[in-house]
Amino acid sequence: MAKKALVLLYPLNEENEIIIPVTVLRKANYEVTIAGPTKTPVIGSRGMKIVPETTLREAMQCGPYDVIVVGGGAFGWRALTEDPDVGTVLREQEKSGRLIAAICTAPIAMKNHGIMYGRRLTSYPTTEDTVREGDHYIYKHDDVVKDGNLITSRGNYTTWHFALSIVEYLSGRPAAEVAAKE
Amino acid sequence: MAKKALVLLYPLNEENEIIIPVTVLRKANYEVTIAGPTKTPVIGSRGMKIVPETTLREAMQCGPYDVIVVGGGAFGWRALTEDPDVGTVLREQEKSGRLIAAICTAPIAMKNHGIMYGRRLTSYPTTEDTVREGDHYIYKHDDVVKDGNLITSRGNYTTWHFALSIVEYLSGRPAAEVAAKE
Repeated sequence: MAKKALVLLYPLNEENEIIIPVTVLRKANYEVTIAGPTKTPVIGSRGMKIVPETTLREAMQCGPYDVIVVGGGAFGWRALTEDPDVGTVLREQEKSGRLIAAICTAPIAMKNHGIMYGRRLTSYPTTEDTVREGDHYIYKHDDVVKDGNLITSRGNYTTWHFALSIVEYLSGRPAAEVAAKE
Repeated sequence: MAKKALVLLYPLNEENEIIIPVTVLRKANYEVTIAGPTKTPVIGSRGMKIVPETTLREAMQCGPYDVIVVGGGAFGWRALTEDPDVGTVLREQEKSGRLIAAICTAPIAMKNHGIMYGRRLTSYPTTEDTVREGDHYIYKHDDVVKDGNLITSRGNYTTWHFALSIVEYLSGRPAAEVAAKE
C-alpha cells in the first residue's frame, strides 16, 4: 500500500519547502495530501499563490499519515502556531510514533504547540535562539537532523536533502535514490 | 535598477522548475513576473495548482526582461509549443541578445519554435533523442550548459544549480552565493 503523506500549506510558508517535498514524495509514489487552513489559494513567503487540495480539518478525517510535513518561511510559523488544529494533528502524530518532518521556521510552531520536547533538532539558522528558548530541545547545526520519528532541516537550500530523508526513513535508501533522480 | 525576469507557468510544467527559479530570483531582489497562458490556476506535472500573476500576452507589453525562464516537466513542453506567443517572446529575447534559461523538457519547445539553433545545450536525459532530431543543437550532458545568452539544464534535481546560474550570469558570482544561502 502506498505511504500516505500530509503536507501543510499555510500563509507565508516558503513555497519550495512545500513544493519540493510534494514533488519528491509523489516521485516515490506516495499518496500526498496538501492541506491548507482553508481551500483558498495560499500566498507564500516569496509571493506565489498555491491552491490547497483540502482543508486541514478535512484531512484530519482521512488519516493516519505516515508522515506530516511542515514547511517554514520567514513568518510561516505564525499561521501554523495560530491554528490549534496544527497542534492537534502534530500531537496525535507524535503520540502514535509516526514521522513528523519540519524545516526552516516550522520548529518554532512545533515548540509553540509543545511538540517533540526533549528531541534533537535543527531549524533555520537565524531562528536558533527562538527555538532554544525554554530549553525544550537539543539544538544541532546539521543540514538535516534525525531523531527517531522526527526529521528537521535548516532552510530552503536544504529542502531536497530534507525531502529525500523522509523517503529514506519510510521506504529505505534505494527508494530515496530513485526519487532523487527521476 | 532591479533585474527583470519573466517566468513562464504552463500546464504540466514541473512545479519546482518554476518555484525554485522564482524563489532564487526573488532572493536576488529581481522583479519577477509569473505569466501563464491565462490567469486561471495552472496544474503542474506533480498535480499542484499554482496561480499565474498575469497572462503571457499582458507580460509581453511590460518587457524587456533580462531573462525569460522556461520550465519543463514530462509533458510540459506541449502547452509551451502550442502557444505561438511563447515562440514570439523567445524569438525577441534571442534577437536582442538577452538571456533565455530553459530546463528539463523546455528545450523541446524551444526547438519546436526554432529558438537558438546552433547553440550548445542540454535537456532532461530521456529527451535527448527528441532534442537532437533535426540536428539543430550541439547536445551536452552537463547539469547546466551555458552558451552565450542561453542557459539550459537537465531536470528537477538540477534546478537550484540552474537558478543560481541565472543570477551568476546577470549579477555575478557573489550575488549568486548570497541567493544560494539566504
